[in-house]
Amino acid sequence: MDNTEYYERSVRLHALNKGKLEVASKVPIENQDNISTACLPGVAGPCMLIAQDPENARRYTLKANTVAVVSDGSSVPGLGNIGGLASLPMMEGKAVLFKKFGNVDAFPICLDTQDADEIIDTIKKIAPGFGGICLESISAPGCFDIEKRLKAELGIPVFHDNQHGSAVVIGAAAINAFRFLGKPHYEIRAVVCGTGVVGNAITKMLVQLGIRDIIILDSNGIISPSRISEFGEEKIELLEMTNKDGISGGLEKAVWNRDLFIGVSKQGVLTGEMVRSMRRNPVIFALANPEPEIKPELAKSAGARIVLTARPDSPSRISNALAFPGIFRGVLDIGAKDITEKMKIAAVHALAGFIPKEKLSEEYLLPSVFEEGVSEAVAKAVAGAWR
Amino acid sequence: MDNTEYYERSVRLHALNKGKLEVASKVPIENQDNISTACLPGVAGPCMLIAQDPENARRYTLKANTVAVVSDGSSVPGLGNIGGLASLPMMEGKAVLFKKFGNVDAFPICLDTQDADEIIDTIKKIAPGFGGICLESISAPGCFDIEKRLKAELGIPVFHDNQHGSAVVIGAAAINAFRFLGKPHYEIRAVVCGTGVVGNAITKMLVQLGIRDIIILDSNGIISPSRISEFGEEKIELLEMTNKDGISGGLEKAVWNRDLFIGVSKQGVLTGEMVRSMRRNPVIFALANPEPEIKPELAKSAGARIVLTARPDSPSRISNALAFPGIFRGVLDIGAKDITEKMKIAAVHALAGFIPKEKLSEEYLLPSVFEEGVSEAVAKAVAGAWR
Repeated sequence: MDNTEYYERSVRLHALNKGKLEVASKVPIENQDNISTACLPGVAGPCMLIAQDPENARRYTLKANTVAVVSDGSSVPGLGNIGGLASLPMMEGKAVLFKKFGNVDAFPICLDTQDADEIIDTIKKIAPGFGGICLESISAPGCFDIEKRLKAELGIPVFHDNQHGSAVVIGAAAINAFRFLGKPHYEIRAVVCGTGVVGNAITKMLVQLGIRDIIILDSNGIISPSRISEFGEEKIELLEMTNKDGISGGLEKAVWNRDLFIGVSKQGVLTGEMVRSMRRNPVIFALANPEPEIKPELAKSAGARIVLTARPDSPSRISNALAFPGIFRGVLDIGAKDITEKMKIAAVHALAGFIPKEKLSEEYLLPSVFEEGVSEAVAKAVAGAWR
Repeated sequence: MDNTEYYERSVRLHALNKGKLEVASKVPIENQDNISTACLPGVAGPCMLIAQDPENARRYTLKANTVAVVSDGSSVPGLGNIGGLASLPMMEGKAVLFKKFGNVDAFPICLDTQDADEIIDTIKKIAPGFGGICLESISAPGCFDIEKRLKAELGIPVFHDNQHGSAVVIGAAAINAFRFLGKPHYEIRAVVCGTGVVGNAITKMLVQLGIRDIIILDSNGIISPSRISEFGEEKIELLEMTNKDGISGGLEKAVWNRDLFIGVSKQGVLTGEMVRSMRRNPVIFALANPEPEIKPELAKSAGARIVLTARPDSPSRISNALAFPGIFRGVLDIGAKDITEKMKIAAVHALAGFIPKEKLSEEYLLPSVFEEGVSEAVAKAVAGAWR
């Protein structure tokens, strides 16, 4: 089924249900006594306990299990800057996946601003009722600063899923590709094509996973010392962790003699010729959306051993729903106040390790979101990595 | 059962359930095809339609049926200024009643600010995803300005329930008291004791209901022309619509020869002597919380024909849940962009008229929230009064 058909089915589904989420009561309201207990006068009881100690909010309110999915709609996958209101169906979808796969109550907050300071300020003002903040579809570079400041100032877990959720899942797929091929991380030579939100995050994740020989490219070529005068803070940071030999040039030069290509860039930029120049058994994650950097058939015929794309027909489907529900389940379960680097790495290893080595194949590097126990495994690992 | 017992039961209920609300999916997520329809890639369909026309949000998202219950916790009934976080159980309770009695999806937003400008600004920033805003437990005078500005600037219904919900329900009880006693509105001489949020709103409502001879008092006595130098904007407005004869003095003077006493002030301020000075068959709504302005037994023995209090054992229980679920049900059903004075008055008459005249009694002036069809009647009347 092509995307147009899914669009039409989706419009019908949304029209029929008026969106996808409802707010439901967990307590019975069948008589006046129920009301007197759940509402006035009884409710003054938990209110007073929280007024005495704010930590009691995690014991007596929905804060214990509730995450805000916040977006300004400035960078919606495949649609670009459509604004907060138009991103609402996407955020409702995220909340639906949160509930299904993590039993997390998530509520969409779509913003009527795209100014970083206003976004930070608004989220801080509405934060008391939430146990965590999942930032979604917010464009670079604002997203970096927004997340950084909220993490520092809020005291509840904050997670920009487009960065870290993607990095966790792609990281797990990369680990399993080389686990399957039997190549240790320190030998892997990687190239990341794209310095957007995902390219940035996956590069940092690869470094943390022990893959230290990385070249990263933006649309003007390799991030190299020779171009440093063009770079802002983010790209200087990327340069510091990549390109040890200080090479410069285009994608053709970058992929030569490499084991792993991760594309989060544009349709068709990777040629069969380039794949042939890579090391033996190259691994290609061509994740440009909706069409990949190279067609899987072409990559395979040029010698690629493993090819994943973002298309629905790709094996080992790269879905963030493998990560964010379990990650938030983990932090909510233990009342963690942050999602640290160590916790994200624990999530990668839990997700990769979910598949026993003997079951791995070119076609099976990630579990399906519908496999029992995926989020539970991620949650357990994330909780275990807190402090 | 006394309040302390309800506090304890409520704490147990909240601890067991970790609050009272959950966010649930209205669509099935049982296989990859479900995800592809509800989330990516299909969800781009409704997103694009909303990007083209913002009005489509009411067709394809939860905005169609969702209200934010917003509080800064600055004036929580019976608890005072406990702050946004500690008011969360109260706001969850409101949301539970919204769902039960109006089938409205309401979500609590508890604010980390009590500054009127910041409250207005924050609500405007998060408004896109909501079909209405129910303000709750926000103190005077800030609440007046906040509601006024949001109504003018937002384009979705905004309703401060402590003012207008209370005024609708108390107004309906007053109408039914005199419908039962057979006295026309233009003959009624009323006294309202208390110029807080509720006293202010009920006074304006009585005027609109055709009860035009009203005296209102604050803690320093009758709102009278002789005190005008003390008054701010709100009390000058009250003075303009009350006290036609320009009398001044205390409660004793105010209640003399009056038919209706509405107290939203302090325990014990109304004496038997004062009740005896009222007109024949006086009606006493002694609504101070938790203890009334006069004990019902004392008022009755002094000649009061009808006595209601805010206590759980009072007949004709004054519950805002008789009004706000139906009012928002009505505006959401028709996509009204405001809740006008005309709509509130329609709600009063629908609520009063829900009880046939022959069934009215001293003990039965308002239906119970559990009577079938109350919110539906209010919703229908409110929708019918829009433009």
